[in-house]
Amino acid sequence: MQKFSDADQRYMARALELAKLGEGSTSPNPMVGAVVVKDGKIVGEGYHQKYGGPHAEVFAIEEAGEKAIGADIYVSLEPCSHYGKTPPCAQKLIDTGIKRAIIAMVDPNPDVAGRGIEMLREAGIEVELGLLKKEAQNLNEIFLKYIQSDYPFVYLKKAQTLDGYIASSSGDSKWITNSAARLEGHKLRHRSDAIMVGIGTVLADDPSLTARLESKKGIDPIRIILDPLLEIPLTAKIINQKSTAKTLIITADNLNNSAAQIKKEKLLKKKKVEILDFETDNTNYFNLKKLLMQLRERKISSILVEGGAKLSHTFLKENLVDKFYYFIAPKIYGGSDGIASFCGEGPKMMSDAVELEILEQKNIDNNILLIAKKK
Amino acid sequence: MQKFSDADQRYMARALELAKLGEGSTSPNPMVGAVVVKDGKIVGEGYHQKYGGPHAEVFAIEEAGEKAIGADIYVSLEPCSHYGKTPPCAQKLIDTGIKRAIIAMVDPNPDVAGRGIEMLREAGIEVELGLLKKEAQNLNEIFLKYIQSDYPFVYLKKAQTLDGYIASSSGDSKWITNSAARLEGHKLRHRSDAIMVGIGTVLADDPSLTARLESKKGIDPIRIILDPLLEIPLTAKIINQKSTAKTLIITADNLNNSAAQIKKEKLLKKKKVEILDFETDNTNYFNLKKLLMQLRERKISSILVEGGAKLSHTFLKENLVDKFYYFIAPKIYGGSDGIASFCGEGPKMMSDAVELEILEQKNIDNNILLIAKKK
Repeated sequence: MQKFSDADQRYMARALELAKLGEGSTSPNPMVGAVVVKDGKIVGEGYHQKYGGPHAEVFAIEEAGEKAIGADIYVSLEPCSHYGKTPPCAQKLIDTGIKRAIIAMVDPNPDVAGRGIEMLREAGIEVELGLLKKEAQNLNEIFLKYIQSDYPFVYLKKAQTLDGYIASSSGDSKWITNSAARLEGHKLRHRSDAIMVGIGTVLADDPSLTARLESKKGIDPIRIILDPLLEIPLTAKIINQKSTAKTLIITADNLNNSAAQIKKEKLLKKKKVEILDFETDNTNYFNLKKLLMQLRERKISSILVEGGAKLSHTFLKENLVDKFYYFIAPKIYGGSDGIASFCGEGPKMMSDAVELEILEQKNIDNNILLIAKKK
Repeated sequence: MQKFSDADQRYMARALELAKLGEGSTSPNPMVGAVVVKDGKIVGEGYHQKYGGPHAEVFAIEEAGEKAIGADIYVSLEPCSHYGKTPPCAQKLIDTGIKRAIIAMVDPNPDVAGRGIEMLREAGIEVELGLLKKEAQNLNEIFLKYIQSDYPFVYLKKAQTLDGYIASSSGDSKWITNSAARLEGHKLRHRSDAIMVGIGTVLADDPSLTARLESKKGIDPIRIILDPLLEIPLTAKIINQKSTAKTLIITADNLNNSAAQIKKEKLLKKKKVEILDFETDNTNYFNLKKLLMQLRERKISSILVEGGAKLSHTFLKENLVDKFYYFIAPKIYGGSDGIASFCGEGPKMMSDAVELEILEQKNIDNNILLIAKKK
């Protein structure tokens, strides 16, 4: 592995920073940032702004103009080598006369997978690989899972008391965490393609499940409701609000097609709700693995599971969670009659509990955020 | 408030460090450290080593010898002014010829309460007060509660999964936290005069409840078992082990004095167990407030409540906890059938949960320790 200079580190860190500006809009594409440097100065910057739009390198090179000739380019992901929605970026670098390309990581997309780098090297461009690779991989964890597996990336979010409750015995849950912690939760929604809840959560809390940020407009995730018996009330907030994202209701494919049911479906479709009939087992539960695969085929690259306790239990048991976001409020419910964060049977022995590795541990205004993954 | 120099800060920090060496042995006295400084050099150090023994100032002045004449002394607590187990330290400072005394905090003990400082000032010693006062107060939180109220200082310790369980549905709890976190728990035992559990914990886990440290010998706390019906098995580990501390069993004073019962009490007393008959209400629960007051009268200045869920619930509900130690393992039990950390009724509204202020948040080898107090 090459030794990179401090300046190299700084330029690549800037490329990653730029990449993150595309968060929420590039899916199922990765977030990518690029910086063009000439004579120790940044002369062009760019990032992939939205799916279908120009790639990061194009913006950066165009901003640099003639200064790009003989310049270095720092890119957070290998330039593409294929004609997709846009022409190949590797060719653009070659045509421009870029001298040296510093690349954080290889694009695992089978359409690229090293061929971009090969093109650059064959054209005589000096290529250096691996600078801030880990940071680049973390940034694009969703894309990596999406491109390398048959499933979307799954976040499981919990907001609970210290003693593990998500609501009191009466179902009250407003509010467990503080507003700063809830804002972090909205950032997670902004980042995710879809948010998934069970119908129980809709009936209990009547949530809107939109991404409400402070400084900029949040991008709402597609709202997916698992509602085998189509119990959603026509008055539910989730389907009666302004939102750029649609609502997708998953119902059981063996649902009684009563006249009332058919009428309800019609009314729901008028509200721009999509209804997807999906197979259930004999207890009216969906096969989540199959469902996730189907959602991935619809180019949903990430899903945030927010509730409730039964759905969380199944995701955990079937090992479908990629990253856990635990928001813990420093308060004690103090009883044994609250609503637990997982509903179902636990293991007989504590040694069979699901072990996590803590990736980040933060204090948000006296609330705790733990970001973790399965060990 | 005076401005203290960096050197002042350093010497007082050293006095506090020395004071802490007495942890576990000075109760119900405070921990105190003293440093004698002459011409910018430490010439004597001392700390209160054990209840009934000489005070910190005596050790420090004696170590300094003739160098103490005209020297400065840094003490973490106001020198005493009264004849207790030892002669007054204020007089010792005067007789020695100390020139300046820097004191972290006033001794709230009504026998002292400023009179030590008064004596020093009257004798012409320059006195400066309040350096590292907060740190000194934290160090002696137990003593402060003990001397200023009718109750011992109460620590409540929990060791739980992320989702709040202290055992699986089968009662298995070995081990939830890692060995580093458990060692921290033993330090807490070492620091406490007594450890309290309900008989349920003894029957379920057969614990030894001793302080097992790595580097030095831990000081075992008095083991207090709330056992209204005297159900403890004669074979229980807790009463059949080598320990410097005794076991105190609290039984109901209206216990049937059957022949079997009387025989059991006799056998227990042979094992150096003390049995204390105490009033219960009609459901066989003790009035914890009254019990704590009685324990304080026995000079028990601190109690660590370790289990179980019912006892914790009562301590929480009656607002008897001074400091919470939450050890959280990064593992998810994932069911709703585990043993919760509090057993009993919780509040109807989440806004009525017990709010805590986090004093410290640590990561101990991927386990989390939260130290908190009620807001």
